[in-house]
Order: sequence, then C-alpha cells, then structure tokens
Amino acid sequence: MTNAASPAVRSTPINVAVFGAGRIGRIHAANLARQPGVKLKYVVDVNREAAAALAAEHGAQVADVDGAMGDASIGATVICSSTDTHAGLIEQSAAQKKHVFCEKPVDLTVERARACAAAVERAGVVCMIGFQRRFDPTFAAVKARIDAGEIGTPEMLVVTSRDPGAPPVEYILRSGGIFKDMLIHDFDIFRWILDDEAETLHATGSVLSDPAIADAGDIDSTAVTIRTRRGRLCQINTARRAAYGYDQRFEVLGSEGMLQAGNVRPTEVVAYSNKAVSSDVPEAFFLERYRAAYALEIAHFFEAVTRGLPVRTTVADGLKALELAEAATRSWREGRAVRVGGDA
Amino acid sequence: MTNAASPAVRSTPINVAVFGAGRIGRIHAANLARQPGVKLKYVVDVNREAAAALAAEHGAQVADVDGAMGDASIGATVICSSTDTHAGLIEQSAAQKKHVFCEKPVDLTVERARACAAAVERAGVVCMIGFQRRFDPTFAAVKARIDAGEIGTPEMLVVTSRDPGAPPVEYILRSGGIFKDMLIHDFDIFRWILDDEAETLHATGSVLSDPAIADAGDIDSTAVTIRTRRGRLCQINTARRAAYGYDQRFEVLGSEGMLQAGNVRPTEVVAYSNKAVSSDVPEAFFLERYRAAYALEIAHFFEAVTRGLPVRTTVADGLKALELAEAATRSWREGRAVRVGGDA
Amino acid sequence: MTNAASPAVRSTPINVAVFGAGRIGRIHAANLARQPGVKLKYVVDVNREAAAALAAEHGAQVADVDGAMGDASIGATVICSSTDTHAGLIEQSAAQKKHVFCEKPVDLTVERARACAAAVERAGVVCMIGFQRRFDPTFAAVKARIDAGEIGTPEMLVVTSRDPGAPPVEYILRSGGIFKDMLIHDFDIFRWILDDEAETLHATGSVLSDPAIADAGDIDSTAVTIRTRRGRLCQINTARRAAYGYDQRFEVLGSEGMLQAGNVRPTEVVAYSNKAVSSDVPEAFFLERYRAAYALEIAHFFEAVTRGLPVRTTVADGLKALELAEAATRSWREGRAVRVGGDA
Amino acid sequence: MTNAASPAVRSTPINVAVFGAGRIGRIHAANLARQPGVKLKYVVDVNREAAAALAAEHGAQVADVDGAMGDASIGATVICSSTDTHAGLIEQSAAQKKHVFCEKPVDLTVERARACAAAVERAGVVCMIGFQRRFDPTFAAVKARIDAGEIGTPEMLVVTSRDPGAPPVEYILRSGGIFKDMLIHDFDIFRWILDDEAETLHATGSVLSDPAIADAGDIDSTAVTIRTRRGRLCQINTARRAAYGYDQRFEVLGSEGMLQAGNVRPTEVVAYSNKAVSSDVPEAFFLERYRAAYALEIAHFFEAVTRGLPVRTTVADGLKALELAEAATRSWREGRAVRVGGDA
Repeated sequence: MTNAASPAVRSTPINVAVFGAGRIGRIHAANLARQPGVKLKYVVDVNREAAAALAAEHGAQVADVDGAMGDASIGATVICSSTDTHAGLIEQSAAQKKHVFCEKPVDLTVERARACAAAVERAGVVCMIGFQRRFDPTFAAVKARIDAGEIGTPEMLVVTSRDPGAPPVEYILRSGGIFKDMLIHDFDIFRWILDDEAETLHATGSVLSDPAIADAGDIDSTAVTIRTRRGRLCQINTARRAAYGYDQRFEVLGSEGMLQAGNVRPTEVVAYSNKAVSSDVPEAFFLERYRAAYALEIAHFFEAVTRGLPVRTTVADGLKALELAEAATRSWREGRAVRVGGDA
Repeated sequence: MTNAASPAVRSTPINVAVFGAGRIGRIHAANLARQPGVKLKYVVDVNREAAAALAAEHGAQVADVDGAMGDASIGATVICSSTDTHAGLIEQSAAQKKHVFCEKPVDLTVERARACAAAVERAGVVCMIGFQRRFDPTFAAVKARIDAGEIGTPEMLVVTSRDPGAPPVEYILRSGGIFKDMLIHDFDIFRWILDDEAETLHATGSVLSDPAIADAGDIDSTAVTIRTRRGRLCQINTARRAAYGYDQRFEVLGSEGMLQAGNVRPTEVVAYSNKAVSSDVPEAFFLERYRAAYALEIAHFFEAVTRGLPVRTTVADGLKALELAEAATRSWREGRAVRVGGDA
Repeated sequence: MTNAASPAVRSTPINVAVFGAGRIGRIHAANLARQPGVKLKYVVDVNREAAAALAAEHGAQVADVDGAMGDASIGATVICSSTDTHAGLIEQSAAQKKHVFCEKPVDLTVERARACAAAVERAGVVCMIGFQRRFDPTFAAVKARIDAGEIGTPEMLVVTSRDPGAPPVEYILRSGGIFKDMLIHDFDIFRWILDDEAETLHATGSVLSDPAIADAGDIDSTAVTIRTRRGRLCQINTARRAAYGYDQRFEVLGSEGMLQAGNVRPTEVVAYSNKAVSSDVPEAFFLERYRAAYALEIAHFFEAVTRGLPVRTTVADGLKALELAEAATRSWREGRAVRVGGDA
Repeated sequence: MTNAASPAVRSTPINVAVFGAGRIGRIHAANLARQPGVKLKYVVDVNREAAAALAAEHGAQVADVDGAMGDASIGATVICSSTDTHAGLIEQSAAQKKHVFCEKPVDLTVERARACAAAVERAGVVCMIGFQRRFDPTFAAVKARIDAGEIGTPEMLVVTSRDPGAPPVEYILRSGGIFKDMLIHDFDIFRWILDDEAETLHATGSVLSDPAIADAGDIDSTAVTIRTRRGRLCQINTARRAAYGYDQRFEVLGSEGMLQAGNVRPTEVVAYSNKAVSSDVPEAFFLERYRAAYALEIAHFFEAVTRGLPVRTTVADGLKALELAEAATRSWREGRAVRVGGDA
C-alpha cells in the first residue's frame, strides 16, 4: 500500500470537513478540534440543524457536500455519515486530493470498496478507516506485547464481542447484516492480532433475542471460526444482547503464554455483601468503552497526514474485513465452511 | 434411561474391584476407601507390581479379571484400565450384575459403546461414566445457578480447554484422536450446560506444537462450533499445550446474564513488583485441578448404588459425547460442517 | 460555613489568575481552560520563563502578584505556588473579593490556616481546597454508595497510601513533615468517608527507605490510628516508597457490608506465563492516578462559583485536616496517643 | 528453644490421647487418624457422650484425664478442651514425658503460660501450639516468598481479621477478652511475618455491634499498631462482625515489593448481571477457611514428633503472642501506647 504516503509534509494548519453530525461525528469533531494545527472548517449533514449545532460548538460553518469538497483549502475529510454515502465521499475526497478518515465499513459491497481503494491509491491520498479498537489502550498493549515476543508465536485467538441490546429492526434492515455491521470490527481484530490472513471460515448463528430480527433476514448471535494460511485458529462469538452491557474481550494463546484483553470498568470499587463480592459492570457501550480509542485514532490520523507517515488502519484493511464479513454471510446462509480470498 | 435404578437398596457393605492401578486408579481407590459401607476388595492390573502396591495400601487383594468378575460378593467395579479394555469390562460387569463406574470413553467406536449401553440397560445395573468435571465445585455451581434461573435461558457457551503439554506420540496413536481423547469431556460439558443436543457441528484444527502429531494423523489445536436443535451456540477451543499450565474455563451467556467458571489457583497470594501485579498460575493438571471432583464423583456413585438413586453421568451420556467426538473428527477430516445424530 | 455562597451568580465569563506554573499549575490551567465561561487571563510565577510558557499555551498573559490581584476583572484565583505562599495569596484574594481555589495545605501552621479561614469567611468568597481525591471516580463512588446506605453504618476505615519513591531531602525539609505533606490527604479522606471527627489519634513511624530522611527530622513510613467521637476506627498506613508504584486504596467496613476503593491500572491486559498470571501495576503517580479527579475538581469549583453553589472541600476542611496532621506529628514525636480538637 | 528436639526418634506407632471432643477436637481427631504411624487411643471429655461418639468414630476408647495421662503407652496428647484446662494438661503431659499439641492460648495469664513453657523445657518434650494459620497454604506461601527474598526486607504489615458474627456474651465473659481470644492469632502472624519482636504497641477499640459486649467489659472492634525493635510497622484491624463473612487477609510491604494473602472462595464462579460482576463471598468461618491448615499442622506435629524435628509453632511462640495480647489489653484500657517485653 502506498496510500500511507502523504503528498507533502504540511507546515500550515489543515482545514477539515466533517460529514455527519450524529453521535460519532460529534465525537470526532471534538477530538479533532483538540489537535494542534487542525481546524474544523465545515460540518455537512442532511440534517441542517444538527450540522449547525455542531458547527457552532466548534466555530465552524455549515456546508453542503459540493461546497466542502469544492473548497481547495480543505485538506482532509472525516466521514461519519450513513454507510451508503461512504464510498461516494471517499471517491470525491480522493478526486479532490483530500486525505480521508472514514468510519467503517467502506461500503456494503466488496466491489465498491475495491473501487474506493483503487481511487485512493491513484490519488495518493491517505485513507484511514475507523477501526478504533486498534487504538484502545488495552488492545494496543496486547498487540505491542505480542510483537515484542512475550507469548512467542500467536496461535489461537478467542474474541468475545457483545452489544448491550439489539438496535431497532429499521437499523438492521439497512445494516448489511450482522457480519458487516458488527463483526467487521472483530474481523479486523483477527487480522491485526494473528497477523495472518484467513484461509477458511465457518459461520453459524441464531436469532435468540428478537424474532423480528429473523423476519428481517438477519441473526443476532453468531459463532465464527477462521483458520489462517499458517494454520492459526480464531473463534469469534457475538451477540446483539448481553444483559450485563457491552462486552469486548479477546485472548491470544501463543506458543509461550497467553494475553487477555479485558473489559474496562467505570470505577475500581469492590463491594462485599452477605451474598457476593462484586465490581462494576463494564463500560456501558462503545462511546464509553472506546472514548480513549476515538481520541487516539483521530490524533493518529492527523499526525500521519501532517508528518507524511503511514496510517495504521488503511482502506486495504477495510476491504479485507469486508471480504471476511461477506464470506461469513455466505457461510452462514449456505450452512457450510467457505474458502476465503484468492490472491489476497 | 432406566439404568439409574439400582437392583436393590443395599444395607451391607459393598465390595469393589478396581481395574487399573495407574494414576487415576490410585485416586479412585483412595477415594472409594473413604466411603462408608464401601470396601476395596480387589485390584486388577496387568502390571502385577502396581496392583500389589495399590492393594497393599488399602488392605485389598490382587486378582485377575476372571477372579474379580467371578466373585459374586463384588457389587461394583471401577474401571480405570486402558481404553481398549473399557467396553469388555463393562459388558462383563453387566453380565455379572455388578454396578459399574468406568472412566471415559466407553469405547473408541460408537457401535461398541452402543452395545455397552444396551448391555447395561438389559442387566439393569448402574453404569456411571467418569465425567468428573460435572462434579467440580465451580462447574457444578454454574450448572446449579443456571438451573435456578439466574441467567434466564442459556444461549451461548464458550469452552476453553487446554493441557499444559502434549502427551508422547505413542499415547496419541492409541488415543482415538484429540476429539475422542480430549474434547470428549468438553462435549459432555456442552450437553450438560446448554441442556440441549447438537444439530450441526463444525470442527477444524491444526498442528502447532509438534509436527510429530501431524505424522500421527492427529492435530493438537482445535476449534469446534456446535449449533443445537433450539439454536443455541457453543464454541470450544482446545490446545494440547498451554505454556502457563492447565486451563479449564467456560462461560455461559444467558438471556439475562452470564456465568463464568474460572480456573482454580493453588494459593490466593498476590504479588506486586515493579513490573506487574501477579497471582498463581492455575492448578498444574487434572489430578490437582479436579481433586475435589474425583472425590465427589466416587461418593456420588456409591451413594447412588447404595441408595438406589440415578447417577448424574450415565452410559448414555458417554455415548452422546462419543457421537459428538466422532462427528467432530469427520468434520475436521472432511473440512465441512456436519449434521449430528438422527433420532438422538 | 457560609463561604459556599458566591457573592453573585455570574452570567459573564470569569477571568482567572493562576499562581504557580509548575506541574500541578499546568494541569489546573489546562483543565480550567476547558470550562465553558472561564478564561485564563494571567499566569504568575517567580520563574518568568515557566509562566510565559504556560501563558502562551493558553493565550494568557504573564503578570506579577500585585498585577493579578489588582485587576478587578479577575474573578477567581487558582493557587498552585509553593506552600509558604498559600496563606498570603488566599488572604489577598479574599481582600480583593476573588474566589479562591488553593492546593493543600492551607498553611503549615494551624494558626495561620485559621486566620485564612476567617478572612475567607469575612470576605464571603468561595475558597476551595484541592483535596482532589474526593473527586476521584472510584473514591466518589464509594462515598455515594455509603451515603445511599449500601453498607449500613460505616464503622472502620483502612487507608493505604504509598508513594513510588521518596522526594529529595530538600523537599522534605520544607514540607512540614510527612503528616502535613502526605497524610493530609488521608486525613481528609478519613473525615469524608467516616463522616465523623477524630477524638483520639495515635501515630508512629520509622525511617525505612533513606537515613537522610531521619537526619532531616522526618520519617518515611507511618502508622496512624484514629478513634472518632462516635467510636468509629480508622487506620492509615503510608510509605514514601512502594517498589511497585503509587498505591492508593481504602476500604470501609460497615455494619452491613464492606466497600473497597482499588487502584487504577493503565490497561486491562492479563498475561499468563509459566510463572504467574499478571496484570499492570497501578497508575504511576498522582498526575496519572488522579487525572480525572483534577479535571472534575476544577469543573466543580467553577460550577460552584458560577452558579453560587457550595463547594465540596472548603477551607474548613483544609483546617481540619491540618489539625489532624499536627496532632499526628505531636503523637509521633511524643510517643503517645493524643486527644484531638476541643470544640472542633 | 530446645523443646523442638524429640526425646527419641520413634519407629513404632505413636498412641495419642485427645482432650476435648468439641468442634476442633473432632477435626484434629480425624486429621490425626489419617497420619501413618499414629493411633488415636483415648478421647477425654467431661461430656462423656461426646467423648464416646468421637471415640467410636475412630475405634478409640473413652478415658478420663488420669487414665489417659497415666498410660505410659500414650506418646502424645492433643489438647482441645476449654482454655482453663490447657495449662494443667500441658504440665501433666510434660510430667509424663508426653509430647503435646495444644490449642491456643496456652493460658489466659502470662505467668501460668511461662510456667508451662518452663515445664515443657525441663521435660524435653515437644510442645506445639495450634497457630494453624501458619500452615494455611496461602499464608505459608507468602512467608516462603518473603524468606526467599522476593520483596526484599519486610517493613510494613497490615492484617485484616474479621469474624462473621460475635459469639454469645457467655463465651466472651470467659474468653479473656478480644485480644487474648481473637487477636492472639494475629499477634502470632505479626511475629512470624515481620520476623521481629514488638517494642511498642498501641491498641484502641470500640463496641459497634452489640452493647452487651460493652457490659461484659470487652470490645468488638479493635485497631492495633505495633512498632518493632527494628522499626518495622504493623497494623491490625479486627471486628467480631463482618456482614460478608470471615475475612482473613494480610499484606506485607517490603523494600522491593508487596505480597498480599487473600481470602479463599468456595468456587471460582463469576456472575455478570445488569447490576454487577460478582464472585463468591469468602469461606464462611475458620473451620472452612483453615480446613487445609488444620490437616497440615497435625501432620507437621506428628512428623516432628516421629522424626525428632523442631515444630514450627512452639510454646514460646504461644507465650509471646499472649504477652502481646496482654500488652494490647493494657494499652486499650489505659488509653496509651505501651512498651512491650523486657528481655523478650
């Protein structure tokens, strides 16, 4: 991948347009506003009120897509709008030689995601995909310790990834299915931690929380197994509903030890009653759990853009995760293990 | 299953013959010697020295198979000899109307195990299979709490089952393969905890510790996924070698919460150095980890036999676990998910 | 205490002068710069370079004490300069009707601290003392849960408070001794958590890390016991040097249960080696451990000032903690238990 | 101490008389019955029924004190009768050249305990005092790791020792007070872990659970501080009532690290609900918590007696712990710190 190379090392402030003024857009806007040498210039959202509110908060202006994309002073776009707009905005950004930070997924189809990757490559711009989990301090520490050789060769990965509750069926209908919507993050974790590519994949699942999810053609609980080219194994279990909250853990067995990445608690209080010794449930949901990760990934993006350094989660990573999501969807639908990738 | 019914409630001491004076035989002998109303009369082993030593320790006699089986005063047999002798000894016990406690597996083939089950059924004797994990205080507490409704409906089970190191290849060659030798316990845990039967099963695996295991036609690391008739999901990950010791954990996600069964540590010491806060690694291997479980299962067997009560792990459970092991072997060899059972 | 009442509820931005551009001054400056409606106008430090650097970072100006105190547009002072300047700056602030946030201790003598409290009282300004531990999320959660009745009546408190290493002897010589310098925080925790005042106090201690500390007339390890008017008990153990880092814990036994406040770790990684199962050592020192607490206390101060609300840690609390530190020093020097306070 | 030397290494079985057929007597009887080369011959109790029941369980005979003491074939006595009989039975055992295992305390007065120690010394018999905590696997591991140098020099000890509930006032009236009855164990832990003797001691306390305890002249909650000759510090907090059960922990800060000895849980289940993540409360009381310790101390006693080895908890240790209990009682009553020992 050459998209890691910034066209030029910048010395003047970089102006940014944020697309999408929803929950995650607001977080990215606040985080980027704190970066030295970075200025939020435009907020774009079909909901003009939301755009205006977010713009006001950071002394930015409201713009429409063409206005923001057409402004040559904009050096980077941050795309947090709905999934169906991602590919188009990436391509427009690339065409205008703007660096791109885009939320996952690149697109719901592998074909379009590939086209995006090609456009980014041709333009020579940075395109970072928002796999914020790689920036979570706990997850990143596990990765660094594996890389430092603490557990020898990583051989087996078990990922637990559960949401506190299922989203509305309307959301599910537009989500591309649980594998593209939810497990795409876990597929990225898999590639990052085992440092290998999938060879075969088996996925199964069930609807256990809400029959309406079945009616929508989706499932709410999955069990995925991946075997890599080098014979490493990965199991991922996910559920849309964990009564105790947001559960984000994984563990890596290596030839010389094991590393576990645990949940984060709001406080370190331990209570002793006559029934139990208890501590806090994990942080409630992704906004709380990955608060530090969101800040760190935006800082990383702008540092990479400013200093001409490679980014840690490229559009190629987004494409690979999407291919795994597609393979998992196929495996589940057809009830059989599938081979993944060709050249990869 | 009617084999739970003892032929008669006993009031006089029950004499026992133990087959196999190896590691596990010695444990069972010591545990049964502590049961009130139970007397170890014979120890049988092709290794006469080992038999003599164990007999001497408990004031018992050495016998050969026919001698022990032919003694009408023997009310129960405890079979801890090599796997290839299990089925024959169960059948002889049944023929002699002796109750049987037999180590897993019943046999390496489903057909022979079925024949044993039928023989036991016809004879009306108790036949308990040594799935000691069900008697582990931690595992049993999880089961009891699920049954009490603490987490609602159990929906997803993740089992981690790792040995501290691979056995010699000679052992592996006679073991029936990793699924029958090692995962048979995990398959029993699956049925017990999710309280459901498998519908589909997918197994894959690798050789990651020792190429000699591949030469022996086996694998040392596995990843199994089971989907039950009611749509519940189970993932099992196993390895023959965990550098940190014996790892025996599982967790059950239910509709209203989760229960985890953790490892047991030798002590509750926590050490703070300038590098880490650390506690003991888990108990070293099965003899230590399941010390309490072995004592409790033998007590349960003799209580069931003496009081005419059903046993918790029947020959039917042994058969079911074996069927899953066979399905897993097939799935792994053929590289595809398989359907399990017919009538079941 | 009437100092909780702000002279007037403000609607225009509040200008602030920070005294002291050292480690803690920089933290408070950064935190107050983030408060809505709060503007850092002046930085004052005898080290003009440090003052200039901090001022530049936040678009503020360098001033001297008289300049800052004489500017009627300054509504609040934040005092983080050396301990011997605290009392004077509090009194000047009070005289100028400026609200005050001051780092602990108010002064090294109870007499002067009393004079400050009186001056603040007369002026009717808010004076908050920087007992940031009350704002630590874990500690505050324990307090809230006690107040909610979770453990019945709080009866016994055990406080563990250890630094990673002893400061230079020059620091110790000017510190007022370990009880005023280090335990003053723990004395505040004691009053806050047990919600009672000391009746008797016993303190002892030793020099265990560095003989130079003995030469300086101080100790590095202490063991304090306090019995309250209502008979509640508190034990505090402190050390200037814990090889594993900064250790900040306490536990409260109540009539119906116990609550423990534990250390905070940088990450939630757990590592399994063949020797131990280990997690991170606690956050390195107070700047890391109390990062959230520092932000929350400054937000609390400005919210109180702006909205005319009482502050949680008043100058009276500072005085009480100082009286306990003085009593502890006396108890240690004289080798006997002492009675505390009169009217209190 | 020379009482560690057995008069002769024994090769024939050692016959034992147990005094006291209560709760702890039954435990010791069962444990000693399992020792190779040890035979329970007599059970002595003023309650003949209790004596008969325990004797029957182990194939022993009922005897009275003179009968048991007068039988020259009795090589050792195990004294678990009421505290007021301990000293007399020790002295009779010594006079008859029988080795002695005696429950704590030796006596309620230091004078009598000293006389016992002298008698034992003169007779040259082994006299072990039942400080079973030194045999607890967790506590013993901490001690061994300190001795191995893991934390450098041990400098500060914090002991938490709480019972699940206060005993009846009738018990308290005969107990010698909380320091001799309950803290005597903690005083032994202090000497053992810090490997030093007390120089000064301060004790205070309160009645927080039941006013009847105050009427009985005792307290139910204590806070003790000890400073050793080498300047090491120890704090002990105790309560007769912890709502969550039996709490037995300590932690040792050393110059190079810290070791904590934690509670033991019945199971390793962790439960996640929507309110908390919880594990088991500690083992209910001393019979459960110290089950392993009781077995190990009896094995140690008979091994020492049989092989002529020193015992780990001598009558001298019993005397020292009693002196600390007496000093603590005095300190509490007089409201002042006291000096401990003279020659010691």
